[in-house]
Amino acid sequence: MMSQHRPNTPALLIDEQRFERNLARLNQRLERLGVPLRPHLKTVKNVELARRMLAGQPGGATVSTLAEADYFFADGIADLLYAVGIAPGKLEAAARRIADGMQLTLILDHPDAARAVADAAQRLDTNFRVLLEVDADGHRAGFQPDDPALVESARILANGGATPAGVMVHAGGSYACRDRDCLVRAAEQERLAAVSATEALREAGFEAPVVSVGSTPTATFAQDLTGVTEVRAGVYAFMDLVMAGLGVCELDEIAVSVLTEVIGHRGEHGQVLVDAGWMSLSRDGGTADQAVDRGYGVVCDETGRVLCPEVIVCATNQEHGILARRDREALKLEDFPIGRRLRILPNHACATAGQFEHFWLADPEGRPVRKLERCRGW
Amino acid sequence: MMSQHRPNTPALLIDEQRFERNLARLNQRLERLGVPLRPHLKTVKNVELARRMLAGQPGGATVSTLAEADYFFADGIADLLYAVGIAPGKLEAAARRIADGMQLTLILDHPDAARAVADAAQRLDTNFRVLLEVDADGHRAGFQPDDPALVESARILANGGATPAGVMVHAGGSYACRDRDCLVRAAEQERLAAVSATEALREAGFEAPVVSVGSTPTATFAQDLTGVTEVRAGVYAFMDLVMAGLGVCELDEIAVSVLTEVIGHRGEHGQVLVDAGWMSLSRDGGTADQAVDRGYGVVCDETGRVLCPEVIVCATNQEHGILARRDREALKLEDFPIGRRLRILPNHACATAGQFEHFWLADPEGRPVRKLERCRGW
Repeated sequence: MMSQHRPNTPALLIDEQRFERNLARLNQRLERLGVPLRPHLKTVKNVELARRMLAGQPGGATVSTLAEADYFFADGIADLLYAVGIAPGKLEAAARRIADGMQLTLILDHPDAARAVADAAQRLDTNFRVLLEVDADGHRAGFQPDDPALVESARILANGGATPAGVMVHAGGSYACRDRDCLVRAAEQERLAAVSATEALREAGFEAPVVSVGSTPTATFAQDLTGVTEVRAGVYAFMDLVMAGLGVCELDEIAVSVLTEVIGHRGEHGQVLVDAGWMSLSRDGGTADQAVDRGYGVVCDETGRVLCPEVIVCATNQEHGILARRDREALKLEDFPIGRRLRILPNHACATAGQFEHFWLADPEGRPVRKLERCRGW
Repeated sequence: MMSQHRPNTPALLIDEQRFERNLARLNQRLERLGVPLRPHLKTVKNVELARRMLAGQPGGATVSTLAEADYFFADGIADLLYAVGIAPGKLEAAARRIADGMQLTLILDHPDAARAVADAAQRLDTNFRVLLEVDADGHRAGFQPDDPALVESARILANGGATPAGVMVHAGGSYACRDRDCLVRAAEQERLAAVSATEALREAGFEAPVVSVGSTPTATFAQDLTGVTEVRAGVYAFMDLVMAGLGVCELDEIAVSVLTEVIGHRGEHGQVLVDAGWMSLSRDGGTADQAVDRGYGVVCDETGRVLCPEVIVCATNQEHGILARRDREALKLEDFPIGRRLRILPNHACATAGQFEHFWLADPEGRPVRKLERCRGW
């Protein structure tokens, strides 16, 4: 043990062994299905972890901000899908990156956005590569697969000198599933939306080589990916309580946690105060709609072992967390002496990790080994 | 207009005029009550804004992390109250800062924490200055004013060579008020808890020169601050939708907003997609328990004028926000062309600002004037 590594609390810890196992599990699954992974790097936001996620894959990645694109491109990851509908105000910035050699792919889901891209392609003399976002479940964005505006948008792009390169679907609705069957269906629905939209494009004369689908739940439960050319997933690398609630992972497979320290007792309530509030844990209450509401996180000992799944963070302020039992029984305060270090498994890996500029890789005993940076901003 | 200032979206904007008016309003109020302000800098996390908040005040400030303490101390703000119960694991770090000349004051609310501080005072040969945190409303932390453990903890500190310098109370329960009377009562309850705990300390022979109270709602509605030596508040500088819901400010007094751009339409739902999700807005849903649930924010035009209080951010993903009407009527999509810039007033100034490393000062027309940094981390 390298005892000089004693992070300030709160600190973000990544259990390296669990992380590697999570990668191996999804990689093996997708290998069996015969489809490569384009990992979404918005969860890890770190180049060393990104490199491990890309190992054995074609090398393309997914990002959620241009800041992430810049950060990873600076380290040689050049094939980047920016998977948020392009804001017209960002097209000049995108063109600069393409001129610098970034193989940037944009997405959009409206003919007006296609027109903005086509106009910018002319004005900036840039061949934007674009995927048409397709909706599988009414969750967020995307053309309906049979919407004539899909093919119309591809035409607008092509006529303007941009490249409509295919389709992308994100079955965000899978997060609302309650059982395995629902997840299997969500994955098939995602595939079907992608494949039928692709057929519409191909019938209209577009090559549409890219058929991109993905979310961690659907990537995990897909039974068949015929017609799909790549899968995107990001949370799978860390996992979290929402994924555990969906049956995508077990609690002891969650690689991300927040190290914290007991700072007080609420004796009359049988509750405990820690120095991790929403500034570190985030305010994500993603398990509130699941069968088991885990508040703002499940409490582990300093090595990362769950104390008791009943013990959660029940409330947060900016830099305070309040620990309590889900069944409202009082905690045994003697188990939580002031100064004791604990770890909190978060609801949502992306949201909690997003609160930190740095993280610590931890060994299987929970000992911090190495501090690494994370990309931030937009 | 300096047209070269066109922030990337999402961006944090601070309306300078509203900010200055918010400062003047609370300063005048506290001047009438005869009590100085120790502003809480966790909301602004920027030294230029901090300097403006400190103008005309004694010069002491409040922080929520040691990272904030370091950041402000580097700029000469030395008198800093670290207003989170001290984690024993942070005492060495605190001692180093005191040795460097920071006038750091700690807080605690348990005899075991007092013992940890007393032990560290001996071990590190440091005279820690400590306020005893007192509870006014069962909201979070603090000794009950009449708890013998309060005086016991002061004795433990003094015997160990630390300085019990008085009391601090934060009436966080005031955020749950629904009307003015409740806020007036919360302020008086906060004052009474502080004063009665101070009396207990003084009767036991401690000087207890500091009697520190505060929250933006109670600072705004206090009618009398007899016996109080300083008021803490932070949100007052920016204001937010939670404060508007409490009657602490009007919507057009909120100085903080997130600049965003329309990226898509959910035509069948009459909803609009923007490029501000929870990574920028935060997941704080602080108005959900108020009379008017404003989702994740109220939508303004690019100059910061509320379009219609009914139009809110109804849902967020990492980098997506969905705009809708509270009454579920469809939005007129022609009012939200793709590429239009909008601004979102947030529920909670601290949480939203906390998502950003930079912000833009904006003029009264909403034009960004100058980019400034914010302190981050722990």
